[in-house]
Amino acid sequence: MFFEGAEKKLELVIAQDCGSLRLLPLLFWQEVLMLAKAEVLSSISNDDCDAYLLSESSLFVWNHRIVLITCGLSTLVDAANELISRLGEHNVAYLCYQRKNEFAAHLQSSSFIDDISILRQRVKGTACRIGHLDSHHHYLFTTDLHTGLEANLSAIGDTCCELLMYHISGPVADYLRADNQTLVDIKKYLQLDELFTDFITDAHLFSPFGFSINGIKGKQYFTIHITPQEQSSYVSVETNIELSTYTIDIISYLVSILQPRSWDIIGFNVQPNVPAAPQNLCLGYCSYPIDKDYNVHFSHYQQLCPEALNPELL
Amino acid sequence: MFFEGAEKKLELVIAQDCGSLRLLPLLFWQEVLMLAKAEVLSSISNDDCDAYLLSESSLFVWNHRIVLITCGLSTLVDAANELISRLGEHNVAYLCYQRKNEFAAHLQSSSFIDDISILRQRVKGTACRIGHLDSHHHYLFTTDLHTGLEANLSAIGDTCCELLMYHISGPVADYLRADNQTLVDIKKYLQLDELFTDFITDAHLFSPFGFSINGIKGKQYFTIHITPQEQSSYVSVETNIELSTYTIDIISYLVSILQPRSWDIIGFNVQPNVPAAPQNLCLGYCSYPIDKDYNVHFSHYQQLCPEALNPELL
Repeated sequence: MFFEGAEKKLELVIAQDCGSLRLLPLLFWQEVLMLAKAEVLSSISNDDCDAYLLSESSLFVWNHRIVLITCGLSTLVDAANELISRLGEHNVAYLCYQRKNEFAAHLQSSSFIDDISILRQRVKGTACRIGHLDSHHHYLFTTDLHTGLEANLSAIGDTCCELLMYHISGPVADYLRADNQTLVDIKKYLQLDELFTDFITDAHLFSPFGFSINGIKGKQYFTIHITPQEQSSYVSVETNIELSTYTIDIISYLVSILQPRSWDIIGFNVQPNVPAAPQNLCLGYCSYPIDKDYNVHFSHYQQLCPEALNPELL
Repeated sequence: MFFEGAEKKLELVIAQDCGSLRLLPLLFWQEVLMLAKAEVLSSISNDDCDAYLLSESSLFVWNHRIVLITCGLSTLVDAANELISRLGEHNVAYLCYQRKNEFAAHLQSSSFIDDISILRQRVKGTACRIGHLDSHHHYLFTTDLHTGLEANLSAIGDTCCELLMYHISGPVADYLRADNQTLVDIKKYLQLDELFTDFITDAHLFSPFGFSINGIKGKQYFTIHITPQEQSSYVSVETNIELSTYTIDIISYLVSILQPRSWDIIGFNVQPNVPAAPQNLCLGYCSYPIDKDYNVHFSHYQQLCPEALNPELL
């Protein structure tokens, strides 16, 4: 029943004088995704963005930028490598390749170190790990800003927030692990219509468990992926909504519904609030400057009450 | 500079009607250890026990019982398999195979699941994981008590305590990472002569860092292994001293000297006290009954103050 929910993520920005990425045919993305062992299940579009729901997470395509997130045993670096080839190295204005710490790293076909040795043959960049190896940690590879090209600074400067929840509990977690779930009920329990008003959404229920949803509204997006399996549950939420001016505290809301034992918040150019409930301890935090105007903020939280652990028979 | 400090451990008890394991020649142990990718560096003996200091941790041999601990990229399961062959499956009264969660599991040549599939071809047993995969966790495989043989119950019933410390800090940790260390100074900083009075000891300093010590006194033993590397420091302490009646609170003492960010305590038939300082939170705890009179107690602690993490450039 184990499924690796923890994701790999690629953000790629191309030079402003390139044509729009949205003009590329579906076949282009299908061929690239195949290298990552992922395929398109469905898609939605608006004037600014195409959002593809994948067998292994999500792809968002704007005119000059993509965000590609894949989980499981996907080989995202191979798709990244192919994308660089097809788009041309000289057209890559910015690339950020991220891996979250896996539950079962030994099952992956490559490590982050393997991945960046491939990427470094194509683009120059800086890599780091944030967080200890024996606890939650995240790997980042980011290219230096491409001085020969007019970088799409406004796109790079966009804020993005990732909320990663581990070991969810409570009635909604129980529902997500039960038989006979429906998309309608999951959306209702997560109150997604209230949290993300007026977004176009595209959701998928996996068998026997698992839920993915993409939402777009203008240039804004959100995506949620739920791996509810009892012993290795993981929920990721990612959005570029400006949380500080948003009417609802999305992070607090989702943490209170899903009651994770621990969670990480990663803010790209944004430092989100700490949820007040459940009572929690920040175990570790870090700020990492990618560029002078671009900071990554990482924080790792744990519920304050000790957890009675159940041995898992193997 | 990375070294995998986290250990694999084998405890093996043979039937009381077998000859003494201590009569086996050094070559026997050398050949078995070679399969685990470990070798004997030195040894000490008393009337009850032979203690071997290894290139990868320690081996203790009593008349009817061994404890073999190996770290790094050692392949302990291969040594365990060979030992079962040489001693005879029918002579194995009890076997416990343990793996602590590795810092870099993907670098290991096998997983715990791989290992127990080998052991299960030889002996019947029960396996479990205690602790979440994304945090500290420990794997245990224990054989059912061998009803056809008179098991060495008193040996099995022995208490054993493991204290595993992660991310040590402070002046002693700094010394352990510095150049020009000496065995004399390390023993003095750790106050080992006061903590373990009248033990015969055997210590080794590895290059450029790393410290191992075995100590024996009658049937009692302790062993300490220190991997001080800044980004992946790990210290293990193991002893069968009866902590509840001991004059010094060894665990509190070593935690206060080495100031780990987090630590685990695993008690086999013993539930050690929680150190009062530094201020800490028990993140998770578990009791696991191996047999009706034999319980394993696991607790995972973290310092209460949030840690400012430094990104590690890769």
